[in-house]
Amino acid sequence: MNTVKTGRELRAAIAQARAEGKQIGLVPTMGNLHAGHAALVEKAAQRVDFVVASIFVNPLQFGPSEDLDKYPRTLAADQEKLLEAGCDLLFIPDVDEMYPAGMAGQTRVCVSGVSEGLCGASRPGHFEGVATVVTKLFNLVQPDLAIFGQKDYQQLAVIRTLVRDLNMPIQIIGEATVRAEDGLALSSRNGYLSAEQRAAAPTLYRGLSEMATAIRNGERDFAKLIAAAQQQQLSAGFRPDYLEVREANSLRPATADDRHLVILVAAFIGSTRLIDNLAIDLDSVT
Amino acid sequence: MNTVKTGRELRAAIAQARAEGKQIGLVPTMGNLHAGHAALVEKAAQRVDFVVASIFVNPLQFGPSEDLDKYPRTLAADQEKLLEAGCDLLFIPDVDEMYPAGMAGQTRVCVSGVSEGLCGASRPGHFEGVATVVTKLFNLVQPDLAIFGQKDYQQLAVIRTLVRDLNMPIQIIGEATVRAEDGLALSSRNGYLSAEQRAAAPTLYRGLSEMATAIRNGERDFAKLIAAAQQQQLSAGFRPDYLEVREANSLRPATADDRHLVILVAAFIGSTRLIDNLAIDLDSVT
Repeated sequence: MNTVKTGRELRAAIAQARAEGKQIGLVPTMGNLHAGHAALVEKAAQRVDFVVASIFVNPLQFGPSEDLDKYPRTLAADQEKLLEAGCDLLFIPDVDEMYPAGMAGQTRVCVSGVSEGLCGASRPGHFEGVATVVTKLFNLVQPDLAIFGQKDYQQLAVIRTLVRDLNMPIQIIGEATVRAEDGLALSSRNGYLSAEQRAAAPTLYRGLSEMATAIRNGERDFAKLIAAAQQQQLSAGFRPDYLEVREANSLRPATADDRHLVILVAAFIGSTRLIDNLAIDLDSVT
Repeated sequence: MNTVKTGRELRAAIAQARAEGKQIGLVPTMGNLHAGHAALVEKAAQRVDFVVASIFVNPLQFGPSEDLDKYPRTLAADQEKLLEAGCDLLFIPDVDEMYPAGMAGQTRVCVSGVSEGLCGASRPGHFEGVATVVTKLFNLVQPDLAIFGQKDYQQLAVIRTLVRDLNMPIQIIGEATVRAEDGLALSSRNGYLSAEQRAAAPTLYRGLSEMATAIRNGERDFAKLIAAAQQQQLSAGFRPDYLEVREANSLRPATADDRHLVILVAAFIGSTRLIDNLAIDLDSVT
């Protein structure tokens, strides 16, 4: 696995793979990789001949009071995991490589609709930063497909929308969330948790699962389910951010008639903000 | 020359040209073609093996009180001119093809800096509409190079900026403005002019030329030159919109020390808005 730091080296390596007739897959990450990221790379390696991963902690998608500076950087361990998962090329640009003229005047990609509410409300500018850096990475790599985790459900919807709206010839694949045995979604931010917080953290997914069971059993009073789950969060030491039931594709608020739903949650435990989600297809037999 | 209406047909034709090892050039237009457009296509044909032109009157870049509805549509004549100039493939999507989900929720590309002031001030949202549709066309065609007229100087700066900021692997070429014998820059909007207005119209370029001569001769009181030129415009029946001296690359307001300048003008005659510009390189001997 080759590791490159500049767009020039990246393009050269990809041009060579293309010249060899290879299909290209991209897995963009912010590093501090866990088994969820490995699953994305493994999925890409099943689908294409040449897997590119990127590690870039993108300042443009962090708010001024967020964890940009303390976000974990673990390059050597990440390289080992990527190699094992089947990655062929790793791109690790620095901030100057991605934003050579600075970030203030950077051209932005603005997705409306699916980027509004939820994390878009809690983290102003976040999805504009995501959409912009993903567009840049897509243009640098020009992959046939790109793979993202469903754990960042709204981010995946934003990326699907921009690819469609801007006519990018790239297939976007969402890969199922990888969870710890107790249900907690794997996340780089889990590393911020104390032992006590870690023990309380599965409350989020337990709440989602209980809501999903109730909805499958016919409950349509979403507000009642949300109130009960947020009460559980408070009892477990969380400070709720949002908990909503949305239509799974458009992300508009769900109605009692919708058949494809997603429940999305964000909550703080201490200063750590965790997110999770659970999609429900009422037309499928489970 | 093949004419196609859908992105699917466009991609298929381009894939075939690529498979034959051809370099691709793109000339985006809004139709109603004149000798200025023909020069862009001829330039492209000199540079690449396969020239794609597009005709799309993009609603996203027109303001609510602008001339979207009366903008001239002259397809048959346009096809003849494109064929003669060496175009290989013409893309003429309709609005539903470019904006299948409507325009309200369309992902936007927002260029700051060079898009502000000048036409960006007179036509709010115009350059966001231009940047968005050009990004879509670039992603549909994925050309090696694209050619635009220098007559739309600020638009050219916006496109150069978005290509650089979003890491698009496309060379952008600006082609010199084609003028009538009396100096008037060729423009589709010249067709709106009455005989009397047409006779007055060269006043704009005459003003630019006189300002350029004065600056070459050492004059640095730009405000004085602007006031005199706008007085000429008023006398000729124009209603001035803007007239400014800017640094030629960044488009920031020019200082007395700048060596690369551009004078940009917009003015109304009747209800028709004309623009023009003249670049001055004080380091070149003329």
